[in-house]
Amino acid sequence: MSSLPINPPPRLLMGPGPINADPRVLRAMSAQLLGQYDPAMTAYMSETMALYRTVFDTANVQTLLVDGTSRAGIEAALVSLIEPGDRVLVPIFGRFGHLLKEIAERAGAEVHVREVEWGQVFTAAAIEQAIIETRPVLLAVVHGDTSTTVMQPLEELGEVCARHGVLFYTDVTASLGGNPVHTDAWGLDAVTAGLQKCLGGPSGSAPATFSSRATDVIRSRSSVEAGLRDPGETAGRSPIRSNYFDLAMIFDYWGPRRLNHHTEATTALYGARECARLLVCETLPVAIERHRLHGAAMLAGVRGLGLSVFGDLEHRMNNVVAVVIPDGVNGDAVRGALLGDFGIEIGTSFGPLQGKIWRIGTMGYNARRDTVLTTLAALEQVLRRLGAPVTGGGGVGAAWDVYSDQEPS
Amino acid sequence: MSSLPINPPPRLLMGPGPINADPRVLRAMSAQLLGQYDPAMTAYMSETMALYRTVFDTANVQTLLVDGTSRAGIEAALVSLIEPGDRVLVPIFGRFGHLLKEIAERAGAEVHVREVEWGQVFTAAAIEQAIIETRPVLLAVVHGDTSTTVMQPLEELGEVCARHGVLFYTDVTASLGGNPVHTDAWGLDAVTAGLQKCLGGPSGSAPATFSSRATDVIRSRSSVEAGLRDPGETAGRSPIRSNYFDLAMIFDYWGPRRLNHHTEATTALYGARECARLLVCETLPVAIERHRLHGAAMLAGVRGLGLSVFGDLEHRMNNVVAVVIPDGVNGDAVRGALLGDFGIEIGTSFGPLQGKIWRIGTMGYNARRDTVLTTLAALEQVLRRLGAPVTGGGGVGAAWDVYSDQEPS
Repeated sequence: MSSLPINPPPRLLMGPGPINADPRVLRAMSAQLLGQYDPAMTAYMSETMALYRTVFDTANVQTLLVDGTSRAGIEAALVSLIEPGDRVLVPIFGRFGHLLKEIAERAGAEVHVREVEWGQVFTAAAIEQAIIETRPVLLAVVHGDTSTTVMQPLEELGEVCARHGVLFYTDVTASLGGNPVHTDAWGLDAVTAGLQKCLGGPSGSAPATFSSRATDVIRSRSSVEAGLRDPGETAGRSPIRSNYFDLAMIFDYWGPRRLNHHTEATTALYGARECARLLVCETLPVAIERHRLHGAAMLAGVRGLGLSVFGDLEHRMNNVVAVVIPDGVNGDAVRGALLGDFGIEIGTSFGPLQGKIWRIGTMGYNARRDTVLTTLAALEQVLRRLGAPVTGGGGVGAAWDVYSDQEPS
Repeated sequence: MSSLPINPPPRLLMGPGPINADPRVLRAMSAQLLGQYDPAMTAYMSETMALYRTVFDTANVQTLLVDGTSRAGIEAALVSLIEPGDRVLVPIFGRFGHLLKEIAERAGAEVHVREVEWGQVFTAAAIEQAIIETRPVLLAVVHGDTSTTVMQPLEELGEVCARHGVLFYTDVTASLGGNPVHTDAWGLDAVTAGLQKCLGGPSGSAPATFSSRATDVIRSRSSVEAGLRDPGETAGRSPIRSNYFDLAMIFDYWGPRRLNHHTEATTALYGARECARLLVCETLPVAIERHRLHGAAMLAGVRGLGLSVFGDLEHRMNNVVAVVIPDGVNGDAVRGALLGDFGIEIGTSFGPLQGKIWRIGTMGYNARRDTVLTTLAALEQVLRRLGAPVTGGGGVGAAWDVYSDQEPS
């Protein structure tokens, strides 16, 4: 065994995430550790909660980190909200809808799904109709699904859920920071995210926020809250099936009671805090406009090369575009040449889209003009070399046009 | 909101963990990210598996990281091994035994416990007797419990478990790297750990290893393995209740199939790999001897100050000592003065030991002579100032004697 120190090859990560972390986030993560109950540590925890309230656009007290990847945040929310036997409605429009279904099933839910073709989204009326038909306790829906690049509008659903007495959970991992997310204004009860997309950090920490309604449901399943001695006992409701993902316990660790739960992943917290701090310094509207601009430039660029784009463009996320692999082109060969010759990674695809599209991201630290132009220039060269018909200079030229028209002064 | 960049105050963390991370680990964690399926990334994953085989002293194929804190590793092992209704035996000799019990209960187990007074351990005969009485599917036992500083001998239990057809899980978070752990020689079926103790890293990644027997049990609960279409269906066994902690899926993500599961926490992986790499370079026997030496010096030092030590010293971990708080001394005032005036953190205690002991660690990067001598010197000054009777110079002097006698040339 003679492994060398970590020294990753330089890559420009232009896929659907993870993307290159902002160097400032990595620097924050290289800071030395603190004890769990050091006043400096608990101050960092409280500041992190406040920063993510701004990021999620919420006044929710329970705004914190789950120690794990974005998937850990999803599971913490679902296993803490869902009691075995609860009916849960999952509208599926891509891969991550299937994930919500699976996690809810494992939490013991009776899951009802509705599906639309990948690349499309649901109308609010269709979801309300499904709520009427299935009478769920919880609606669980992905906001932006990177598998298809489209984003389900959530604005109207909070009111629908409130009217029908349904809890409203959404996964904003792919959208947060690059597209509008308004937790309180949209009536979201539980929202979870990750760092590795528009927030410009590494996977491994899941910011999350919970309304007072969601908090009450979660707390009602806690033996501590119910004043019972046996951790298995609760006030008439079933205990949360997980200890690690027991949000009632996690609330009390982050809250003024500071009850010991896990040993906080200090380095991940430093990173998550810095991601939010940078976003708050930039301001959310500016960050979203940055994602819109560079996403528009990438979209124009791939079209300028003569390529087609997949999915409902009216509902495209700002930060990732799905490019139809042209007939006769080996998609993996293009990706391999981009990585091998240019050090640029773009994404492959899953399920019904496997082999049919590439996914190109412009998010977080990589939502920049130089990354867009470099990726388009390299893609043109690779396609040309592999004999695909491309419009020479059309990609970079079209992106340049977007910047000329729209770049803020 | 005007939070400043992360800039933690300098601390010498001499509690039961987390301790100061090795700067080389933090540097590794500041490396830029890679895509999940980049050949460089999958090579790092495979190297990490190989490095932890050496650290765990095992040939187990399934040796990998769970993305979360050490508690995530425990829950992944228990929820993947335990089917609802399974009988599980948990011998409890401290706080973390209670945690294993609680996690096993939430996984649906019928948990049987045996308890000894905190500070003591079990004989192999007592555990065998409990196995005979309770006929468990699984024995789940903590190795070193930092709440009491003692370490349950495991050497003989593997043979006992094998003879009775019982799976054998142990949590070595507190002991690994500073005390002998021999997964294969001791017949351990499932072992989980964390980075924040003797491995010198931050909390947030849980190295784990699973025998072929444990792997078979886990795989038998996987719908993929059983060739079934519905993720809820398995070949006669109940599906694993968690998606995030489904080790069958995690095996396939780390293994040659590279089936997508979570998005690997790349930065945490870089850190976990560096922790193991440094340990393997030092060699396990040398690292364990280092922990033994500095632990012995700290033990001699606190005694040299005239303080008493708690627990069964025959079974003490090398890396943490429990010091009885002298009568009339306010333990928290001492801890506060050490932190406030000297920047040194020592540990408080829990449960029946609350307010009765301090826990002083010498582990990982902080298992060094300068940290031992500095801590003893500061502790003497604080105790003196608070009016406690101490033997002036006796602490540092006694530690110096240990080093003079025993330090390797």
